Amino acid sequence: MKTGHRVLILGGGFGGLHATRALRRAPMDVTLIDRRNFHLFQPLLYQVATGSLSPGEIAAPLRGVLSRQKNTRVLLGEAVDIDPGARRVTLRDGGSFEYDSLIVATGSESHYFGHEEWREWAPSLKSVEEATAIRHRILYAFEAAERMTDAEERRAWLRFVIVGGGATGVELAGALSEIARHTLRNDFRVIRPEEAQILILDGAPRVLPGFPEDLSKKAERSLIRLGVRVRSGVQVMAIDAEGVTFRTRDGSERLAAKTVLWAGGVGASELGRKLAERTAAETDRAGRIKVNPDLTIPGYPDIRVVGDLALAFRPDGRPLPGVAQVAMQQGAYAAKAIARRLTGGKEPPPFRYSDQGDIAVIGRAAAVANLFGVHLWGYVAWLVWLFVHLMYLVSFRSRVLVFIQWGFQYFSFSRGARLITGGSPPKSGN
Amino acid sequence: MKTGHRVLILGGGFGGLHATRALRRAPMDVTLIDRRNFHLFQPLLYQVATGSLSPGEIAAPLRGVLSRQKNTRVLLGEAVDIDPGARRVTLRDGGSFEYDSLIVATGSESHYFGHEEWREWAPSLKSVEEATAIRHRILYAFEAAERMTDAEERRAWLRFVIVGGGATGVELAGALSEIARHTLRNDFRVIRPEEAQILILDGAPRVLPGFPEDLSKKAERSLIRLGVRVRSGVQVMAIDAEGVTFRTRDGSERLAAKTVLWAGGVGASELGRKLAERTAAETDRAGRIKVNPDLTIPGYPDIRVVGDLALAFRPDGRPLPGVAQVAMQQGAYAAKAIARRLTGGKEPPPFRYSDQGDIAVIGRAAAVANLFGVHLWGYVAWLVWLFVHLMYLVSFRSRVLVFIQWGFQYFSFSRGARLITGGSPPKSGN
Repeated sequence: MKTGHRVLILGGGFGGLHATRALRRAPMDVTLIDRRNFHLFQPLLYQVATGSLSPGEIAAPLRGVLSRQKNTRVLLGEAVDIDPGARRVTLRDGGSFEYDSLIVATGSESHYFGHEEWREWAPSLKSVEEATAIRHRILYAFEAAERMTDAEERRAWLRFVIVGGGATGVELAGALSEIARHTLRNDFRVIRPEEAQILILDGAPRVLPGFPEDLSKKAERSLIRLGVRVRSGVQVMAIDAEGVTFRTRDGSERLAAKTVLWAGGVGASELGRKLAERTAAETDRAGRIKVNPDLTIPGYPDIRVVGDLALAFRPDGRPLPGVAQVAMQQGAYAAKAIARRLTGGKEPPPFRYSDQGDIAVIGRAAAVANLFGVHLWGYVAWLVWLFVHLMYLVSFRSRVLVFIQWGFQYFSFSRGARLITGGSPPKSGN
Repeated sequence: MKTGHRVLILGGGFGGLHATRALRRAPMDVTLIDRRNFHLFQPLLYQVATGSLSPGEIAAPLRGVLSRQKNTRVLLGEAVDIDPGARRVTLRDGGSFEYDSLIVATGSESHYFGHEEWREWAPSLKSVEEATAIRHRILYAFEAAERMTDAEERRAWLRFVIVGGGATGVELAGALSEIARHTLRNDFRVIRPEEAQILILDGAPRVLPGFPEDLSKKAERSLIRLGVRVRSGVQVMAIDAEGVTFRTRDGSERLAAKTVLWAGGVGASELGRKLAERTAAETDRAGRIKVNPDLTIPGYPDIRVVGDLALAFRPDGRPLPGVAQVAMQQGAYAAKAIARRLTGGKEPPPFRYSDQGDIAVIGRAAAVANLFGVHLWGYVAWLVWLFVHLMYLVSFRSRVLVFIQWGFQYFSFSRGARLITGGSPPKSGN
């Protein structure tokens, strides 16, 4: 049965890709549109930024992933506007697509809370380009320090400040520590890379605020063991080329640092904001769209929002976090709800998140995990982390390549993808 | 014995790296300066451009490669001038280094024979950035073709013109054919990627002019079997956004093509030109510096030039080709000559190239090789190519990763690194 029902899916991340796959046997015309031609395994992007993996190893071309799904076409394009009345999506290049059902899965972007000017000095970690730019900065900082004759300048090049103590911030800090203490250990003749200072600044009272308190404590202790300093409960006031200023309980402090990385916060994608405007939907401070229990936008039963862009809730009223698990489940749910609606079946039950827990890696053989309420840490949690991340990589090829890269790294302490590429180096004092 | 003799090596390619390694037990202060922090295995760069490999898989960080070589330091910097009288090298950032012996191995750059404006429309394949930009263009062309409604526009997006029929041009053409006929076969819904037209334009009468004539013929036949058209003996007159114009024996022709790739020619690096100027050395049309039989510049026994930048000759007077083998042997020779000169040994015998032959791959299970005068082609030559290239990769990790990528590709016809990244897409008609 071919119904000709046109499902348009915007975004090929976890939400969009899982929605598309869930429609593989549906008698519909499915179109997936993404700005990029690949699905990116975001949770490992920090490993690209820290030289462990190459971008190609955590990306899978969307066309390749979906080539056998004959009811689906993939298009490279950036959706910039949605007309919910005419049921039409407009692309940046002027093209437009009509839909019968729409799934919006365009995710989130890094958000500087009104300080866009910080972006230049504190890059964030959302895209492949940003990850390679951060890799560039980190590696270049050691190179620059090696050439500095002034001790203070050298210290500023060897200080790395990470803004944000969530999973990304913790992962970056742990990886940076391993780079400084192991990977680059014998590589320099003037500086000692292990003297690098790595700091996490966070406004919350503890790192990994999404985790139970005992695991946050364990994570912080692991970080300290790795030489990472955690400054909790501080508020960043300024970031510039020479460092960062932040407010503490007792006043304010200034740290000279040539490398500041932003793991601070995310907000709705640009298209998400447009969609909220067009549908007069309610949003939270970050711009996430408040959706009905069936993930539709109030008043628009043909538009569903999934993943980071959706503000959905647990039965107890707490909002769902912006993680891959939620996006995947929402994507699959949205697809099934559309199929069911079309075949005239009864209304689907509300979306219910099946929480399998959280996991964050801190460094070599150190992680924390909260799985079905069981708290794990250290080596065991790290093994679980490894297993989970390898299994969720989309392509078998990626799984093998990443496994090998990790194996080499574990035994040799070396990192395979230590390339400084692209653009000119960051501004140097020399 | 520590002599304090300062050897400065400019460039960490095949020549510079082999020179540095050959000095690992020499009682000298060795400094290797490169613009990049990694050694790049150039012969496989076309596989990055065609989505088979990630840059990190064919690059090895110079510091890592040389970390145990305690007499050597590595610096990230770009040499911009040489003062042979003061024995001093100046870097772009203003720093300077004095030397007692200098090895210049800064290689070649792509050369547009006075038509710099072609660079924008016909990128060449010398750096990681250029390789990913070419990958971007190739993959984007198929995406754009999928969206075109005008048949002529679509044809222009599906036509790929490669200027130059040397090893790089032939390798690119073969890889492009495999992409169109196999990798992307089922990925599109509107276009048929196998209808892509791939052309090689070359001024020489045959492809692979460095090979014996029978192997050139075999290579051309393999290309034709892969659907590649070869236009020999033509001269490119213009390249712009819409295509390429070239002169044939009978007049001139215009081809509409959105993707033109430059595999046309190389010339001396900028520093090489500066060096020739400063030493009043003789150069050829491409700017290569004519060196003495011991690779020194006439009048400057403390400066040696190795690799693509050196114009050296075989005993029969033919110039040595700009290939990795020559650079590696020259690098090692230059290092040994310096060490011998220092210990007061007798003058080294002139550099003698030990020619192990040439090899070029055309596609899946097709290559041509001329090894010690034995002509090989087809599957056998291809196996030799695989083996040689895997063995010459600098790090063991790269060898394993590349081997696995190739294994996947051979059996699945798929390519792992099909990412369109960086910058905005090329100008599109839509």
